[in-house]
Amino acid sequence: MRPSIALATAILAASTYFVPISGIVASNSLSGAFAQSEKSGPVVTSFTLDNGLQVVVIPDRRAPVVTHMVWYKAGAADEPPGKSGIAHYLEHLMFKGTKTVKNGEFSAKIASIGGQENAFTSSDYTAYFQRITPEALPEMMRLEADRMENLVLTNEIIIPERDVVQEERNARTENNPGSLLREAMSAAMYQNHPYGIPIIGWQHEVNALDKDDAIAFYDKYYTPNNAILVVAGDVDVETVRKLATDTYGKVARRAEPGERMRPTEPPPRAARRLEMSDARVRTPSFQRLYLAPSYYSDEDGEAEALEILSAILGGGSTSRLYRELVVEQKIATSAGAWYQGGALDHTEFGFYGSPAPGTTLAQVETRTQAVIDELLKSGVTEEEVKRASKRLIRSSIFTQDSQSTLARIYGASLTLGSTIKDVQDWPERIAKVTPEKILEVAKKYLKLNRSVTGYLKPEVDAQANEG
Amino acid sequence: MRPSIALATAILAASTYFVPISGIVASNSLSGAFAQSEKSGPVVTSFTLDNGLQVVVIPDRRAPVVTHMVWYKAGAADEPPGKSGIAHYLEHLMFKGTKTVKNGEFSAKIASIGGQENAFTSSDYTAYFQRITPEALPEMMRLEADRMENLVLTNEIIIPERDVVQEERNARTENNPGSLLREAMSAAMYQNHPYGIPIIGWQHEVNALDKDDAIAFYDKYYTPNNAILVVAGDVDVETVRKLATDTYGKVARRAEPGERMRPTEPPPRAARRLEMSDARVRTPSFQRLYLAPSYYSDEDGEAEALEILSAILGGGSTSRLYRELVVEQKIATSAGAWYQGGALDHTEFGFYGSPAPGTTLAQVETRTQAVIDELLKSGVTEEEVKRASKRLIRSSIFTQDSQSTLARIYGASLTLGSTIKDVQDWPERIAKVTPEKILEVAKKYLKLNRSVTGYLKPEVDAQANEG
Repeated sequence: MRPSIALATAILAASTYFVPISGIVASNSLSGAFAQSEKSGPVVTSFTLDNGLQVVVIPDRRAPVVTHMVWYKAGAADEPPGKSGIAHYLEHLMFKGTKTVKNGEFSAKIASIGGQENAFTSSDYTAYFQRITPEALPEMMRLEADRMENLVLTNEIIIPERDVVQEERNARTENNPGSLLREAMSAAMYQNHPYGIPIIGWQHEVNALDKDDAIAFYDKYYTPNNAILVVAGDVDVETVRKLATDTYGKVARRAEPGERMRPTEPPPRAARRLEMSDARVRTPSFQRLYLAPSYYSDEDGEAEALEILSAILGGGSTSRLYRELVVEQKIATSAGAWYQGGALDHTEFGFYGSPAPGTTLAQVETRTQAVIDELLKSGVTEEEVKRASKRLIRSSIFTQDSQSTLARIYGASLTLGSTIKDVQDWPERIAKVTPEKILEVAKKYLKLNRSVTGYLKPEVDAQANEG
Repeated sequence: MRPSIALATAILAASTYFVPISGIVASNSLSGAFAQSEKSGPVVTSFTLDNGLQVVVIPDRRAPVVTHMVWYKAGAADEPPGKSGIAHYLEHLMFKGTKTVKNGEFSAKIASIGGQENAFTSSDYTAYFQRITPEALPEMMRLEADRMENLVLTNEIIIPERDVVQEERNARTENNPGSLLREAMSAAMYQNHPYGIPIIGWQHEVNALDKDDAIAFYDKYYTPNNAILVVAGDVDVETVRKLATDTYGKVARRAEPGERMRPTEPPPRAARRLEMSDARVRTPSFQRLYLAPSYYSDEDGEAEALEILSAILGGGSTSRLYRELVVEQKIATSAGAWYQGGALDHTEFGFYGSPAPGTTLAQVETRTQAVIDELLKSGVTEEEVKRASKRLIRSSIFTQDSQSTLARIYGASLTLGSTIKDVQDWPERIAKVTPEKILEVAKKYLKLNRSVTGYLKPEVDAQANEG
């Protein structure tokens, strides 16, 4: 859940499942925006087909490459109770063929032309993409539109792929104490909202998923009026419009998923603490999460202020936490803060740190708390805010250099409910955040009753084994 | 959630909402059973009407009194996501009149003949009952059967009653720090199962419940094939059969709720801790919950062993905890343990204690842990098991003296899936529990990773206020 450099990794990774994507894409999604007024910004165009599919075109003629993505407004938080993991499982199954395309044929086609492809599932959306040369775009659109309505699932396909998903869970979660603790911390954080359920699903529930579950999710959410097509790269709007109309335009609007409503959180009443000890842990670590609004669930400008707050407190080696814990006090080998603003509903503002040899997790926590308390008491300076917002805006400008990052930013943001203008105005909004607003959101959200604190320890506690 | 003397209170209480009922009824439900072989046990008869309604008759001719109860296999854990509180809200609305009976008329009728009535909602069931003289039984059955299918709800009725429910929540939960902490502990305990959601509902969700939600829940669950009628008292089976056929027998079977399936818990990975400080708290208190199987979700005899384990560890003033913490060490004014076995799914085994003046919550917790550790190390003696099981069986025999308790025991147990024989064999099963089995379940379930620990403190912590 840490929006560090994971975005690039995620895009390059061959795997199709990225737990942290929601936070990362989103945090970057807006920080990755750049204003139309910036000379270098692209002219982003959007239109909607008759069947409700929104199409976004982001021309980028620097190289003969196109990024083609389809985003569905359906993620793990939209799963029915007891069916955790079905969104991600279905993402796997989308590669298994249609009425006219054999299992694996789509992927083989992409490989044969030297293209790349991938897919990912977050709490709030599921997306599929290919990077190809422009002449392959018509075929990609035909194949992607085809699997939007013609997916064929048989038990022969379903059962072995479920084992693949379980292996993925084993590798990422079951065999990773840090992931297990984060999973338990999320479950303790969300008292009512489905963000407390892991995206990949609870192991015992994934084991019970079947064809009917996959088809039900597909039929409910994989309809053009619940999707956004993003085409970035060496294309023009009219070409995309014509191709999209000829391919996606023929897909029937076959469901009405309606407004995205999930159970919301009650007021958090008490701070929660978790501790896990595991012999596989190499480095002890401290984490603290606070329930915080996202860019999509906040009140007027709170998310932008939280973004800068996280940068000042814990964004990199010039941040207050790093300077205090790592540089000055030398009690930690790492220390920082992050804000995962890119979620549809209330989300997390987090802290982390690892003790230096000879110091304890409690010392790291106490010192982190002292840094937070000092900020809550004295606020932040105008100078700090300027530095942080400049840094955020500057780094967002770099992201436009990556065509696929750009496509992801627009895809994720629009899927979550932003307009193109919202994305493009992000630097302006960031530049306007005041020290007063930052102190206000810090006081409002960095309250212990909103928090979950986790300790991950190397030694094995005899009592704490799984049961 | 503490199965102390609350059952009697609950039955006498005028209110219609008893958070602890599930635990209490259930724990008592089985401990309240008595074997056919005991000379004094009643002959309990059961039959099923054509529309699927199960009818249970418990003759008790000692006094001209009849207890008439209808149990629905639907409780708070069966609510759709985001609709918490609808089971309990509907329970209130069931008193609001039908096509032919005016709002309040049913209750007025009972009052006019000097009867008593009430209703209660648990996580697993909702029940309605009257205590009346035998000659009023036909009319009670007519009226209760009528509201099983003819309930009339209007916004005029719905809206003010929602305020009544909110007032109830304010009185029981919002204004009670202990309840707020227990609510937060439950939410932290259950990572996936709906037992983590309060029976009365989250305040913000109750505020949004409407007529459609109530009608949907009613139409889905209030059908004769999802209900059990229990008639105890001065009646004979044939009279009840004739009356039930003439009244309930005419209610259409209008839904098929099917098997009761809720999302189940993943393996608990990490111990959780919560702390709440509130100026309204008079006495600090410590609580510890462990996720444990119920009589209905356990493996072969585990629940019976947990029942005796709780009695040995913390059932009354002769228990290990009371003797150690209150009598010997004098560090606590109260200390004990309880087991809430009467739930459909995995449930809680709990500990509690309040420090004596001059001692801390941490001391109470440490000493409680030491008592648990000692048991995990050395087990329990044959003698302790005998004493505890005798006490449990003996106290269960006393419960047959109360006709309405008896009706509740059979109603709750059968609603959860027991047979009449299961209920009657309970003393035999309890008498067979061995020290080995008790050590086995203690080792299996009293593991810290399965636990949630809560501290309730009187002083106000500036940071810990609600936000």
